[in-house]
Amino acid sequence: MTAASIAADLRAAIRSGTYHPGDRLPSEAALMSTYGVARMTARHGLAMLKDEGLTVTRHGSGVFVRAFEPMVRDSGAHTAPDGVPAAETPGAGLTVQTMTVASDVAPDDAVRAALRLADGETVTVRERRHLRGRKPLLLATSYVPTSIAAGTPIAEEDAGIGGTHARLAEIGHAPVRFREEVVGRMPTIEEVRAMYIEPGTPVLAVTRTAFDAAGTAVEVSEITLDAGEFVVRYDFEA
Amino acid sequence: MTAASIAADLRAAIRSGTYHPGDRLPSEAALMSTYGVARMTARHGLAMLKDEGLTVTRHGSGVFVRAFEPMVRDSGAHTAPDGVPAAETPGAGLTVQTMTVASDVAPDDAVRAALRLADGETVTVRERRHLRGRKPLLLATSYVPTSIAAGTPIAEEDAGIGGTHARLAEIGHAPVRFREEVVGRMPTIEEVRAMYIEPGTPVLAVTRTAFDAAGTAVEVSEITLDAGEFVVRYDFEA
Repeated sequence: MTAASIAADLRAAIRSGTYHPGDRLPSEAALMSTYGVARMTARHGLAMLKDEGLTVTRHGSGVFVRAFEPMVRDSGAHTAPDGVPAAETPGAGLTVQTMTVASDVAPDDAVRAALRLADGETVTVRERRHLRGRKPLLLATSYVPTSIAAGTPIAEEDAGIGGTHARLAEIGHAPVRFREEVVGRMPTIEEVRAMYIEPGTPVLAVTRTAFDAAGTAVEVSEITLDAGEFVVRYDFEA
Repeated sequence: MTAASIAADLRAAIRSGTYHPGDRLPSEAALMSTYGVARMTARHGLAMLKDEGLTVTRHGSGVFVRAFEPMVRDSGAHTAPDGVPAAETPGAGLTVQTMTVASDVAPDDAVRAALRLADGETVTVRERRHLRGRKPLLLATSYVPTSIAAGTPIAEEDAGIGGTHARLAEIGHAPVRFREEVVGRMPTIEEVRAMYIEPGTPVLAVTRTAFDAAGTAVEVSEITLDAGEFVVRYDFEA
């Protein structure tokens, strides 16, 4: 019996409903006894399921079938720059923390292109994160051209009620159209650490560009979501 | 020197641009010599980068920095039920293959709920895949209530020009509104095999529901995209 065969057995049992989300899988010791294998073989079989994102390990209590109970990030109903309205958060609301605000920053090429900035033009950068309890679920960094943000609360730690979008509206740059581009990829080491991402869990990387009525790109946001926590919803017309 | 330290060195070198997308990384033998480690340590360090999706292995020629050159799946500009218009495909177009068409199938709970079917109501199922050359990039399975599909080309192998959506329009059920829900997750073993998905690559699982002008859900599609190949784009109003 190989580790792969043990993993295949357990995978089939999870799919067929023998083990439900939240159930504990057999321990290494139980697998050693059931299959007559060495501890390392049993451990490797369990590790394969974890790498596939099918299970989570709770230290001291075992390996459990992962439950996917995502929050909905509804892009159409956004009221916040990150598109995660507090009203959609089931149960206890998310906490939003502003991590850093920096002015007059030279943007990287992707941000420069998205905002159609000339050489030498700079941006105001706002870094935020959304937490459920102490677990960060989403990291968001937004970039607004300095030519727009300078002298407004967008460049201050507290952008005020309604955030960046409300401030943009007050100075005649209300976002009226959005483009979002979604990529799925494995998290970087830094993202794993920043969001405590489980093994076998990708991230959704959303690049969101906000345009005002004149068609000017007034904000670009790079939003990284723990894909184990979210479903991202879009409603649109044919 | 541990495998993790070797991986960290190579990761930093990839990020800093010492190695560009498409470049070959040092071989196991070169790493053994540079770091003074055993072959298994060098191999394990390279495997860590592969699991993170940073590299790809080409058998017989080495380990290369992965290039992410995605196609855009533009949901707003869709002309096909899968939302991947041929016109958007850079270079050689995608081939679309209809794999199976089955009528009078009992849907699972998710499809039943999305189509708001009563107990005992069945669906017509169409399974397709999109390939670039011989590489499948996208699997799509769509479900239309039998009460709508029966007696139309939707239930036939060749649904005709314009596909399911054109046929729905002809019988007064033209899709006018769509909801898409996007999840990122690791592929199943079956998806890895069906799409030859690289290690360290998640899938984007899109559930797309099409509504007619009366608000009836006329089609649900489960679309699985190799996340190493696509960026999914949405344009919407505030």
